[in-house]
Amino acid sequence: MKYEVQFKPFLEAIEKTLLKVLPPETRYPQALHEAIHYAVFTGGKRFRPVLTLAASEACGGDWRNALLAAAAIECIHTYSLVHDDLPALDNDDMRRGKPTCHKQFGEAVAILAGDSLLTFAFEILSRVEPAEKASRLIAELSTASGTYGMIGGQVADLTVNAANLDLPTVDYISVHKTGKLIKASAVMGALAADASEENVERMHKYGECVGLAFQSVDDLLDGDGYLKIVKPKEVRQKIRDLIAKAKKEIRPLGQKADKLQALADFLLERMPRRDRRVAVDR
Amino acid sequence: MKYEVQFKPFLEAIEKTLLKVLPPETRYPQALHEAIHYAVFTGGKRFRPVLTLAASEACGGDWRNALLAAAAIECIHTYSLVHDDLPALDNDDMRRGKPTCHKQFGEAVAILAGDSLLTFAFEILSRVEPAEKASRLIAELSTASGTYGMIGGQVADLTVNAANLDLPTVDYISVHKTGKLIKASAVMGALAADASEENVERMHKYGECVGLAFQSVDDLLDGDGYLKIVKPKEVRQKIRDLIAKAKKEIRPLGQKADKLQALADFLLERMPRRDRRVAVDR
Repeated sequence: MKYEVQFKPFLEAIEKTLLKVLPPETRYPQALHEAIHYAVFTGGKRFRPVLTLAASEACGGDWRNALLAAAAIECIHTYSLVHDDLPALDNDDMRRGKPTCHKQFGEAVAILAGDSLLTFAFEILSRVEPAEKASRLIAELSTASGTYGMIGGQVADLTVNAANLDLPTVDYISVHKTGKLIKASAVMGALAADASEENVERMHKYGECVGLAFQSVDDLLDGDGYLKIVKPKEVRQKIRDLIAKAKKEIRPLGQKADKLQALADFLLERMPRRDRRVAVDR
Repeated sequence: MKYEVQFKPFLEAIEKTLLKVLPPETRYPQALHEAIHYAVFTGGKRFRPVLTLAASEACGGDWRNALLAAAAIECIHTYSLVHDDLPALDNDDMRRGKPTCHKQFGEAVAILAGDSLLTFAFEILSRVEPAEKASRLIAELSTASGTYGMIGGQVADLTVNAANLDLPTVDYISVHKTGKLIKASAVMGALAADASEENVERMHKYGECVGLAFQSVDDLLDGDGYLKIVKPKEVRQKIRDLIAKAKKEIRPLGQKADKLQALADFLLERMPRRDRRVAVDR
């Protein structure tokens, strides 16, 4: 089944929640709130918040109770894209067929819109009840997205160059830049569902495999520079192994985990069958 | 008594807490952690965290229990300076006699070091116990520093120009850009001390007056453009009124509030006696 069809109720609820928790784009100062809406409501796949809702359901929870956690994660993901696109970082003019946030609103507003979304993520989580749950979600998200996680990976990626490109560095970047936030998405679904420690641990393992697979699929799709020191054929095998491991991890959860199984399969489908360079050479 | 002497125990405890809660500057990726330390340990006055500790003491708490809240606020304040100094915003090369963070480490690392400090603020607060307190502190800090508070004020300040400079806009900027975070510093001290709702409200009012006075003193010191539509003489009178109101608000708290009284007086002392332009004309 197509992703958009299979996850339609999740996707609709995520849009609705984001609209509800973020201030309207007409609010003063208007340039700021317009930039926030422009960056957030852009037709992305919402992979991370969907994963949170699916993980929550897999752990026996009502996925509706995980919507604030899902919205917070999407705010973090969106801010990271807005800041990554800036001239000082990746210097991208276009994202998903539209001018990037700083192209549309100027660099200053884009930087501050990113800061706002990062701040909103924690404001949203502070509304979760009971407070014990809010506090655990905030600990998880802040650790996964800060210097121990996503930002650590981004800086490693920025400062890497042909001279110091080695396997440990490539692994560090894969694990941190994308992997940590995806892992946190699964774990936060479990926390939102009041899952047993056993199931929280299960989401840790599932999320870790899926996060790494996600980054590796992206590397293949981008024809990334890392492929110079890791063979594409090996990367594809690694992805298949990670997905198999992730799916095995959640098998004991039975039917409740059907959507998590589907998300793992979705990554396999995104994986290009052959090395792009080979395809070009033919 | 000199600020540095009067608040020595507070200042030492704040430095120690920041050193303990932030990762060491030798941690990988090193450029990121060096930039974070460079920005945080820079010999600032630590006005906001000192205010938090003083407010906590004024509400009958042990100020040591407010140190995590104080450290979190300083992380927010520091990130806002790092991002404000960027070329796309104020484009400042120097801060407190040293090259600004982006001058020293490059724009990309400076942007991400700011993001890291913003993230750390909430990671630090998630450690506060009990969780009800953590969650309330996070709600307060995120609201005060996001689009409803500090960032709202920054964007209003950025987008203001001679054509749309009017009194409501000047007031909005004064209240939001600096005022909201200073008010939150006082309120978070009260929350850390498990203060009664009456005393939390008292810290709201005290913090609001002190925050506005702080911004107005800065405007006078900077010879800010707003002084074109507000007369410096009137600003000085406004500051004196705000400080008097703040001091009156905390009088019922007695001796416990001595340090809060001293902080209010400290702002009065920082206020330039005469309009700089007059001084220059003489």
